[in-house]
Amino acid sequence: MPRYRLKVEYDGTAFVGWQRQAEGRSVQSALEEAIAGFSGETVSIRGAGRTDSGVHARGQVVHLDLAKPWSPFTILNAVNAHLRLAGDGISVVDVVEAEPDFDARFSALRRHYLYRIINRRAHPALEWKRGWWVPKPLDHAAMHAAAQVLVGRHDFTTFRSVQCQAKSPVRTLDRLDVTREGEIIEIRATAQSFLHNQIRSFAGTLKLGGEGKMSVDDVRQALEARDRKACGPVAPPEGLYFMQVDYPGD
Amino acid sequence: MPRYRLKVEYDGTAFVGWQRQAEGRSVQSALEEAIAGFSGETVSIRGAGRTDSGVHARGQVVHLDLAKPWSPFTILNAVNAHLRLAGDGISVVDVVEAEPDFDARFSALRRHYLYRIINRRAHPALEWKRGWWVPKPLDHAAMHAAAQVLVGRHDFTTFRSVQCQAKSPVRTLDRLDVTREGEIIEIRATAQSFLHNQIRSFAGTLKLGGEGKMSVDDVRQALEARDRKACGPVAPPEGLYFMQVDYPGD
Repeated sequence: MPRYRLKVEYDGTAFVGWQRQAEGRSVQSALEEAIAGFSGETVSIRGAGRTDSGVHARGQVVHLDLAKPWSPFTILNAVNAHLRLAGDGISVVDVVEAEPDFDARFSALRRHYLYRIINRRAHPALEWKRGWWVPKPLDHAAMHAAAQVLVGRHDFTTFRSVQCQAKSPVRTLDRLDVTREGEIIEIRATAQSFLHNQIRSFAGTLKLGGEGKMSVDDVRQALEARDRKACGPVAPPEGLYFMQVDYPGD
Repeated sequence: MPRYRLKVEYDGTAFVGWQRQAEGRSVQSALEEAIAGFSGETVSIRGAGRTDSGVHARGQVVHLDLAKPWSPFTILNAVNAHLRLAGDGISVVDVVEAEPDFDARFSALRRHYLYRIINRRAHPALEWKRGWWVPKPLDHAAMHAAAQVLVGRHDFTTFRSVQCQAKSPVRTLDRLDVTREGEIIEIRATAQSFLHNQIRSFAGTLKLGGEGKMSVDDVRQALEARDRKACGPVAPPEGLYFMQVDYPGD
């Protein structure tokens, strides 16, 4: 039974999120339906990350097993044909055969996310729901300075959703860089794994830093408080992109 | 009666085009309604270019006169508030007071367009209707070489719509550059003015060049034929962006 690894892009706007919910359409179900549509097999796929409703992906990774072997090229074209027919904003951008023990979630070494802020007076027309629109000017250098306080191994209780199901609030954040190109501010975050709402909590807090409402010391104190109430307002989902997952041997 | 110059961004997907039509919603009407909504004045605006249905803009320019003077900042915020309420994919990104004789269409020195090709096997999910999806690999260097044949002053009968209303098919094309960054091919075109469907006709023809189906010489012969039938299939509107207009004194 061959195992495949798929790299998936999606526009999260119309979905209830990655995972199946009681109501509404999930990315996972839409993808499973497209796979069943071409292969005739009912599959259950696992993703590297469970993105929330409205969150986008450029490089979500999933694995699945099919009873009948197909070429990766055929899978890519056939699944995409079904996705286009369904009118879902999902596209499989790469397919490779994987080792039998490859697991999209548990084999992951590092996850890379991008949080995008559209920082200009006028609301975005062409990039509506493709970033967080913040009309007031933000100081991205101040945001970057504050972000560096968060890098490293910490108890991130302040920056996780109260609904987060992870056993431990301790994570190691490898990177949290804030850069600007014109009216776009990009926050790039890398870690082996993240807590629920962690990056959107970072983005909401760093935005206060960019407005001059929180200093580097304030952000440090918020982290050290280990108290959800010390977090800035959580940034909206439309700014977040799941970009890439690194695996052993890549 | 002060005159204002507005720079406008829009997602052309849901519109019948810039100009008012018998049926459907035009960018021009949507913008005029938003202006009336805040000012109470019924205005008629003129744009620098009449984009077709599905064509986008980053820098369409319009001028308008208002009986009552307002600060440019107020106009930008108030018009945008009305545009957001209407749910139209339009945003006013800049407003300045203009000279009384400024005319968005007739004062224009140069117009800049971008034609975007998404050149990869998988259809675009996040950029659906934000570029022309071409799954087969294109040789952008061959496209650029063919494009250079078109630069300069020529009779562009081959590359204009049969519905084009311009008196003369002669235009001076200042620039037609083809570059690639990853899976995105960009065609950048500059001229004082363009014929109807001229850039989409270029893009459709250059795509044949990128597939190896038309040589540089074939493109030269197509130009010299001055015959609409020598043109490649016209490229779809979703790849085209009206980027910028240059005026005296800018």
